[in-house]
Amino acid sequence: MDRRSFLMGSGAVAAGTTLASPAISQGRKEWKMVTTWPKNYPGLGTGAQRTADRISRLTDGRITVKLFAAGELVPAFEAFDAVSNGTAEIYHAADYYFQGKHPSFSFFTTVPLGLLASEMKAWVMHGGGWELWNELSNQFGVKPFPCGNTGTQMGGWFRGEVNTLDDLKGLKFRMPGLGGEALRQLGVNVVALPGGEIFQALQTGAIDGAEWVGPWNDLAFGFYRIAKNYYYPGFNDPGAQVSCGVNMAAYNELSDQDKAAIEAACLAEDNYGYAEFMAKNGQALTTLVTQHGVQLKEFPDEIFAAFAEASDKVVDATGNYDALAKKVLESYRKARTEYGDWTRVSDQAYANARQRAYGG
Amino acid sequence: MDRRSFLMGSGAVAAGTTLASPAISQGRKEWKMVTTWPKNYPGLGTGAQRTADRISRLTDGRITVKLFAAGELVPAFEAFDAVSNGTAEIYHAADYYFQGKHPSFSFFTTVPLGLLASEMKAWVMHGGGWELWNELSNQFGVKPFPCGNTGTQMGGWFRGEVNTLDDLKGLKFRMPGLGGEALRQLGVNVVALPGGEIFQALQTGAIDGAEWVGPWNDLAFGFYRIAKNYYYPGFNDPGAQVSCGVNMAAYNELSDQDKAAIEAACLAEDNYGYAEFMAKNGQALTTLVTQHGVQLKEFPDEIFAAFAEASDKVVDATGNYDALAKKVLESYRKARTEYGDWTRVSDQAYANARQRAYGG
Repeated sequence: MDRRSFLMGSGAVAAGTTLASPAISQGRKEWKMVTTWPKNYPGLGTGAQRTADRISRLTDGRITVKLFAAGELVPAFEAFDAVSNGTAEIYHAADYYFQGKHPSFSFFTTVPLGLLASEMKAWVMHGGGWELWNELSNQFGVKPFPCGNTGTQMGGWFRGEVNTLDDLKGLKFRMPGLGGEALRQLGVNVVALPGGEIFQALQTGAIDGAEWVGPWNDLAFGFYRIAKNYYYPGFNDPGAQVSCGVNMAAYNELSDQDKAAIEAACLAEDNYGYAEFMAKNGQALTTLVTQHGVQLKEFPDEIFAAFAEASDKVVDATGNYDALAKKVLESYRKARTEYGDWTRVSDQAYANARQRAYGG
Repeated sequence: MDRRSFLMGSGAVAAGTTLASPAISQGRKEWKMVTTWPKNYPGLGTGAQRTADRISRLTDGRITVKLFAAGELVPAFEAFDAVSNGTAEIYHAADYYFQGKHPSFSFFTTVPLGLLASEMKAWVMHGGGWELWNELSNQFGVKPFPCGNTGTQMGGWFRGEVNTLDDLKGLKFRMPGLGGEALRQLGVNVVALPGGEIFQALQTGAIDGAEWVGPWNDLAFGFYRIAKNYYYPGFNDPGAQVSCGVNMAAYNELSDQDKAAIEAACLAEDNYGYAEFMAKNGQALTTLVTQHGVQLKEFPDEIFAAFAEASDKVVDATGNYDALAKKVLESYRKARTEYGDWTRVSDQAYANARQRAYGG
């Protein structure tokens, strides 16, 4: 009996005893979903809960998914290991938290100066991305699915203005991952902090500024009470994909119908959750600007160009890790060029023309 | 026995006779899906087929969905009536084809100078759009679901250049719907033609130009062989949503699990099909420009501003139809402002900054 079966045994029996028909109860499974988010955290925790509920509903309870928020069953960043070793059957997370396992995991959330959400969907679902993602995650016994997207994130909160590259030097700024590495190359004193500790660090002056997600999540944490300059666009998280990973042994024993339920639940949430970030960010941005006196400021071209140069160095370096990392990097770079050219004449050109036509 | 039950009777019996267990076969349904697309038409016909297959797979064959392409069971534009009166259980279409029933149907596909795909998803799923759509469609006995999106479409193919508003006057141009009405206000001789007749009309000179969808679909029809000037951005179909409509009586008799299957299948395809248009348009654009000598040209500001002014008149006029039409218009306008403001500092600002950083 493997560790998963052992751990799951008592749960399965307990579920069985509450059912009238043994013939039905035998096929029922109780899955544990671990996440990297606080319980009911806007868009992320709630998206995980919606996914769990949808799987249960689509399978008519053949699979009941019980959600564990970060720290409830395992610490946030151990979600991947928990699914890999069978402690839990499924995680809801952002794969770039697991870049310590393999640097290519970053590409399946987002990398600095990378793909927009629309381009990310194209790459993952129709540009070879998902196949590479399987190749990567399957090595760890995990089957990956797209399951949400935050859309383009903001550049972050700054006490003062950022007008030249000199203004960045020595700044104590919170940014995780490859984006943080890129900022470090520009002389920023980069600090890694969990989301829940940012506000206090800002308040005490331990940091001068911070990047978190976007207006919806940032409003909830109240950063506007300390720093008023809200910079855009973010260079580090252009279209951050949220993901589910399923333990492969647990997945492989499912019926074709239940496999379809997992996939459909994830693809539906990938859509519904993305739409929610888009809608709620729009509302929150209005609130921040009209009610809290937040100043929206665009990064000057010189600074964004420096972000791009530093980002490409950091991202390109991931390709040296192994043969798969090189394939992932090349596939992603090709997608950025090809889909970027289409974005330029479609969404981007339309949004620019619409703005010029109406002013503002 | 209502008409639907009568028509479905023989099919249900036929399905039953092939099954071993009468207890299982009794619960099985064979649904007809009518569409407004040719069989296997790229992205649209194939998206309908994927949706039908996913419903069958998610319900383990309790609902088997058989697809009828345009004209096979009913003509393309009678798909809505067929579902409304129970001749078929489900359609896969673009709701703006049904604007003759009620002008507000246009908003649930796209209107000129309207929402981007990302904004449309936000409005429909989290901004009150879906509730209004239900209010509209339920009057006809139809339950609506988002089920695909073409993304921003192109402005169309022109033999000559379009530099001033005078160049539009008297031009014989193919464009349907509200966009066509807007063009007519600018002196264009607007022609309505089904997609399959555009190429010949271009070849014979019956029309001077045409708008269809985007690079992927336009390449397939070979318009580049006649007209070389490919204008962007399209003002008329910024983020055209594809939809499913389900006969309400058929829907209401489903179990909760099977209702969840319909919704998840549609939301998954809404995501997967959108991603496919994004990916395939990127590839096709490269082919058109590098292999077929197509000239990409941007509409001058003066012309796009005229498109916007004419479009808003045409779109605003739909609000006079009845109280629901007024509510839909107001909700959509609010979404365009609020989500448009967010697009401006997120996707749009990021795409512009990325382009400036890399040139091109």
